[in-house]
Formats: sequence, structure tokens, C-alpha cells
Amino acid sequence: MTKNKKVNAAILIIGNEILSGRTQDTNTGTIALWLNSIGVTVNEVRVIPDIEGTIIDTVNHLRKVSDYVFTTGGIGPTHDDITAQSISKAFKLEYEIHKEAFKILEAYYKTGEFNEGRQKMVWMPKKANLILNPTSGAPGFNVENVFCLPGVPSILKSMLGGLTNAIVGGKPILSLTISLRTVESEIAEFLTKVQNNNKDVEIGSYPFFQAGKLGVSIVMRSEDQSRINSCSEKIIEFANEKKIEIVDR
Amino acid sequence: MTKNKKVNAAILIIGNEILSGRTQDTNTGTIALWLNSIGVTVNEVRVIPDIEGTIIDTVNHLRKVSDYVFTTGGIGPTHDDITAQSISKAFKLEYEIHKEAFKILEAYYKTGEFNEGRQKMVWMPKKANLILNPTSGAPGFNVENVFCLPGVPSILKSMLGGLTNAIVGGKPILSLTISLRTVESEIAEFLTKVQNNNKDVEIGSYPFFQAGKLGVSIVMRSEDQSRINSCSEKIIEFANEKKIEIVDR
Repeated sequence: MTKNKKVNAAILIIGNEILSGRTQDTNTGTIALWLNSIGVTVNEVRVIPDIEGTIIDTVNHLRKVSDYVFTTGGIGPTHDDITAQSISKAFKLEYEIHKEAFKILEAYYKTGEFNEGRQKMVWMPKKANLILNPTSGAPGFNVENVFCLPGVPSILKSMLGGLTNAIVGGKPILSLTISLRTVESEIAEFLTKVQNNNKDVEIGSYPFFQAGKLGVSIVMRSEDQSRINSCSEKIIEFANEKKIEIVDR
Repeated sequence: MTKNKKVNAAILIIGNEILSGRTQDTNTGTIALWLNSIGVTVNEVRVIPDIEGTIIDTVNHLRKVSDYVFTTGGIGPTHDDITAQSISKAFKLEYEIHKEAFKILEAYYKTGEFNEGRQKMVWMPKKANLILNPTSGAPGFNVENVFCLPGVPSILKSMLGGLTNAIVGGKPILSLTISLRTVESEIAEFLTKVQNNNKDVEIGSYPFFQAGKLGVSIVMRSEDQSRINSCSEKIIEFANEKKIEIVDR
């Protein structure tokens, strides 16, 4: 892949605890921000339950339509952790003990502590590449364009840095936010014009409430800083003309 | 639908700001907790960009495989708000001014303030049912089994109460959490046994870090409280036997 090609990814959150509302997913944001910084756009996120057939079908769909797929969750030691075996089936690979992972965890735990539950975490698809875990030992893994990460946010976060070299991104996606003390309907017509005249910049408009006051953040995203700057100049000009306060957020 | 049927839903989050990692979605949790309380299980969540074709295809898929679909985002006044027109196309319905919505917003805004941007918010699929908005006037809407809500979390939250009577759920899904001062690998084998002997209870295991200490929350979910109780007795018995502390979370 060259640096000029658009590169995209899908994120697949595996876990009943997100679907039930018990746990608030934060991994999507963590992965998305990291991917943006290395020039990969997230096209789609899905959250699915811990059901083998659903995991297999969804992974097999997403890995065909996306350059990269990142899964989170389901690689721990308990009965509801079924991501590794599901990925093995999705790729029609043997589900077996990964020797390198075994050595890592054998060294990580004290003698006698590397019990049956923990040994489950070294079962992976045959020939998977490991994703090292600087926080708690147990590695994630990668098969072709699918990268499997744990669900615990702090552990996941600590593993992304080691992955950066494995991902070939395009140009980083740059963004600039301008926040105005106004409401969306006051600027909607103007923003439509700016968007129509600058189709290569993605312009989003997001109302906010802060310290009891209303405002709108306008987010401009593009691979080309000069195109962002040209839109932001138009917006600042408009704000000054209409005497709309530009605020920090 | 009778109270004995399982009822499910899909949540569709529409918005580039979630995919870019700029904004943390919290609407999934809000909608999921509310749905659980009225006996509806969330089977799937998808996050997709503000692209008309993607919205149409995804809505048309989800509304066929789910009893209910809840969308969030894209019903405001700006150029990137394209949910209403996309839903119209998905259902092959005219996209037109909704007379009742027009009256509501005409009354809501002071004379002269119901400008072009705001008038965009009354364009909806023909014959859509309104979802009233006690916070900021502009209603959401419903076509068949698809319910379209705004993206701003506080506004969305305020609209769910009014929707409860429109949704026919099954038995409410009950849950009980027991948190233990242990690590997953110490209880994995035992939990597998409990899950295998109680297939009608969904048992999840979630590690946590709190005040510098490790623990595991075991979540049991079922429509039948007595089945949950029978699992929780087993777990408490096991914890006592192994001298594992039961903690409040």
C-alpha cells in the first residue's frame, strides 16, 4: 500500500456487557484516535454478543470489506471468552497452543500460578502473530488483517503502541475544530455553502452545552492542511461579520 | 406480541464524530438500559458515517432482522444531518414537511426565529409518527419499527420516557452482579461448570481494578429471578469455601 491510498478499518466490539448497557465502551474512541493518527479511517463499528456464530460471520464479513479489523474482548480465561476459537473457525485454522505465548505466560507467572484458566489464554489460531501486552502478560494476536485485543481499556491502550509498525496507513487525517457561541440553526445555511464549495473537507457540526451556555463545534477533517485552513478562514470571517463569539473548548 | 416472546432491537449510531474518536458515544448505554427495563434485548449496535447510501442499506438490513431499530444522530438543522431524508429513501416514502412537527416548532420558537435551518427539522418521511422532545422542541420520528432519535445525549434521554408505551417488550431481563476479590483465572473452571449447568442464565465475568485492587464482577442475566438466585447461591458457596472475599461494587 502506498501513502496515497485511503486506508480504512472496522472495529468489532465483542461483549454482552456493552449490549446490556452495563459497561460503557471506551475502546472505540481509543482505537479510532490511534488509527487516525497513523492515517487509517474507521468506516464502521459493530458491537456483537459473545455468540460464536455471530463472531465468525461478522469477522468474515468485515475482513473482506475493510483493510483492517480490530476486535476487542473475549480473549481472557473464562467461559465467555470465545474470540480466539471463533477467529480460528472464521479463518478455518487449527485452534491450538501458541508456543511463544505459552513461554511468555510461563515466565510471567510464578511457579504453580500458570493454572488451567490462564493456560486457556495461550490457545490461538495456528500461526497467529502475537500482540505483546506490557500490562498483564497475556498477548493478543493477529491473523492476516484481523487484530484481536482484550476488552479491558487500560490493557488495550498499552498494547496499541507496539502495533503501530504492523499497520500501513495512508496520510494522517488532520482535523481542526472551531467552536462558536451560537446555535446550529443560525449557521446551518452558511455551513452548507462552505461544505458544497469544499467537498474534499469533511465538515461536521456538533452542538454543545458548557457551563450553562450553548455553542456549536465545527470540525473540519482532511488529509490536506491547506484545505482545512481555507475552510476555517471562511468560518472565522463569517463569525466576525455576524459578531458571533469564537470560544475555546 | 405476547409477553413470552423474546423481543430484540438493534441500535444504529449515525455520526462521523463517533468514528473519528472525537466524541464518546454514550447513547448506546442509555438506550440499552432503558430497553432492558422494558424487556427488549439489544442484539447488535452499529456505528456508521453520515453517508446516505450507508444509512439506507444499514437501516434496511437491521429493520428486517430486528424487532425494533433505534437510530441516533443526524436529525438536526445542518448539512451533515441526513438521517430523515435517508430513512425516507430506505422506506421509499416522500420526504416532506410534517405538519404537526411544523406546528410544534412554530409554537416553540419566538416569531422570526423559526428560520430555514430550523425548518429543515420538520422534513420527515411521509406519515412518520412524532417522538416528542421535552428538552428542545424538535421531535424525533418513527416509521414502522424504526425510531429516530437525536444524537445529543441529554435530549435523547429526555425522549425515551415518552416512547415506552410504543414499544412492546417481553419479560424484563433481570440481572444480579456478585463481585469477588479474586482474578478471573482462579474462578474460570468453576464458572464454566456453573454456566454449563445453567444454560438459561447468561453468566459474564468482568475483571476490574478499583482503589488499586483487582477483582472480578460476575453478572448473571435471565428473565427468571429464581434461576439467577440458584446460580448466585453456588457462587457465594464457592467463594466462602475458597475464602474469597465478596465485595461491594
